[in-house]
Amino acid sequence: MTEASSPFRKDLHRLLALMPGPNQEAVDAVICRDAQLTKPPGSLGRLEEIAAWLAAWQRDTAPAIQSPLVCVFAANHGVAQQGVSAFPADVTRQMAANFHNGGAAINQICKSFDLRLKVVELSLDHPTQDFTIASAMSSEECLAAFTAGREALDHGTDLLCLGEMGIGNTTSAAAIYAALYGNDAGFWTGRGTGLDDAGLLRKQKIIEMGLTLHRVYLSDPLEVLCRLGGREIAAIAGAILEARLRRIPVVLDGYIVTAAAAILHALDPLALDHCIAGHVSPEGAHREVLIRLGKRPLLDFGMRLGEASGAAMAAGNIKAALACYQGMATFAEAGVAGKNG
Amino acid sequence: MTEASSPFRKDLHRLLALMPGPNQEAVDAVICRDAQLTKPPGSLGRLEEIAAWLAAWQRDTAPAIQSPLVCVFAANHGVAQQGVSAFPADVTRQMAANFHNGGAAINQICKSFDLRLKVVELSLDHPTQDFTIASAMSSEECLAAFTAGREALDHGTDLLCLGEMGIGNTTSAAAIYAALYGNDAGFWTGRGTGLDDAGLLRKQKIIEMGLTLHRVYLSDPLEVLCRLGGREIAAIAGAILEARLRRIPVVLDGYIVTAAAAILHALDPLALDHCIAGHVSPEGAHREVLIRLGKRPLLDFGMRLGEASGAAMAAGNIKAALACYQGMATFAEAGVAGKNG
Repeated sequence: MTEASSPFRKDLHRLLALMPGPNQEAVDAVICRDAQLTKPPGSLGRLEEIAAWLAAWQRDTAPAIQSPLVCVFAANHGVAQQGVSAFPADVTRQMAANFHNGGAAINQICKSFDLRLKVVELSLDHPTQDFTIASAMSSEECLAAFTAGREALDHGTDLLCLGEMGIGNTTSAAAIYAALYGNDAGFWTGRGTGLDDAGLLRKQKIIEMGLTLHRVYLSDPLEVLCRLGGREIAAIAGAILEARLRRIPVVLDGYIVTAAAAILHALDPLALDHCIAGHVSPEGAHREVLIRLGKRPLLDFGMRLGEASGAAMAAGNIKAALACYQGMATFAEAGVAGKNG
Repeated sequence: MTEASSPFRKDLHRLLALMPGPNQEAVDAVICRDAQLTKPPGSLGRLEEIAAWLAAWQRDTAPAIQSPLVCVFAANHGVAQQGVSAFPADVTRQMAANFHNGGAAINQICKSFDLRLKVVELSLDHPTQDFTIASAMSSEECLAAFTAGREALDHGTDLLCLGEMGIGNTTSAAAIYAALYGNDAGFWTGRGTGLDDAGLLRKQKIIEMGLTLHRVYLSDPLEVLCRLGGREIAAIAGAILEARLRRIPVVLDGYIVTAAAAILHALDPLALDHCIAGHVSPEGAHREVLIRLGKRPLLDFGMRLGEASGAAMAAGNIKAALACYQGMATFAEAGVAGKNG
């Protein structure tokens, strides 16, 4: 992937150049109607911002959520063989089956808020390479996963929540953050699914090994993605970018989904403007990452499960925020007096 | 109300003495099942705490939310004649009509999360006395409102969200906080529905006048409620306490509902153990009050509308939290491997 003209690089830069901005006319229309609704100005706080955000990126004066999609990408990581997770690597496939059978947390949250769930398994039989030994993915593998992410969005989707499942992927995300933002691995690394102190130290050491091996390439965000990332992380980057092109607002999940977002942000600081941070995770330094991305998380429930669970919780709140905007009466309609003076 | 043996005081202390504690057996059962669900331990953060909290106060090993009720109490305040609100006093009645007609924010939120809404109008034709001139309520009036709050809970309610509507009631709540916790009125006072700087100063001065007039009585929380409170605040206190006796967990709304809660907490620090703070409001020093009550708010959306809107948003999240607990498969059921080692 070192050549400047790899197909992946060309594809990505072509897409970045096509990104639409927010639609100011739609935002103005929402702000105008909002000012007439039966409540003191500003009193719904972030719920008001959400309606305007949906309008801005759906590019529509009448924002709608008819077909919200939760897309969970599953992949396996070669670095898992280094014992960086509290759970065995088989759990990736087992949890994907659990998603299909309706037994996971994300299934219950999707049912609660009427969100459609789609699970995309990315070559589970072929883990990425162990990044302490080689590049996690070739440029071709990374492009294939990125493209799978782009293709996962269903026709008509009007809100997209992104999530992941992949034993070992907090290690990958921590390595990405250390590569993009500096500081030593320890700053970015958390306990993942539940490492003890010895496990946490081993995980940090493994990340440092990867950073050392790939050091000379890590000033390039695309190299960071291919060398330290995973198929689900590449797919999520693809889905975020494709959503932008299709005018679909995106709800980011936690620590790992944000690593995919951070790659795009490093390539183009405007690339996440259509994304909201669904929640902040206690994993690693997720809160620090969100500050760097300029994202204020909607929820702070101490959730660190992944599988889009935080994004889907946020989506329930986003739907209610839009319902307020759509369904409330105006002062005139309700015969309610406005502000004095 | 100065006599130690008023009917209101006797009634209240009788009820406080009857309050059940949490059911530890139910909590233990929830924690035991939670540990078997297909997720890393603790990874759902506050969602896990919520399931245990519901079990503790429903006193049931199988917590359920079948009939969640949102109860909004509306009342008028004599102090509104002092120009402490950005809206005219007529708006209390107009907004109550808006609730009945389905046009308010709370209607949309209740629809989004399938919550039943009940609006209780408390003598709207008879505002309380202006507390800068006299006691806002007599002991009898306060007891009547408190009792109306107790009687508002429907049979079968298994989660209660409390809210209010009352032009002038942030003034009343600020006065209650200053009386209970000290500091000058300015510390506790916010802009309510949207006061300008001059209005905010006038509001603070009005509150100081009330505090001065009633000064010698304000070491007694019941006197604080009668003299500075309002009918909706007394009713909410009654509803909180009645819910405890009926094993109904309670979701508090924002600045004004919390003033009712603070009165109970001042009478008995255990009186709010069945309550969760649905959100934190930017109004006044709500965040400071929650610290004094030992409550960590679930949501922080910058909402300051009242009418139970923050509590109802929280209830949507609480329902999803319970759905995770109820619907998730165990490791054994799903054939997912547990933690290593």
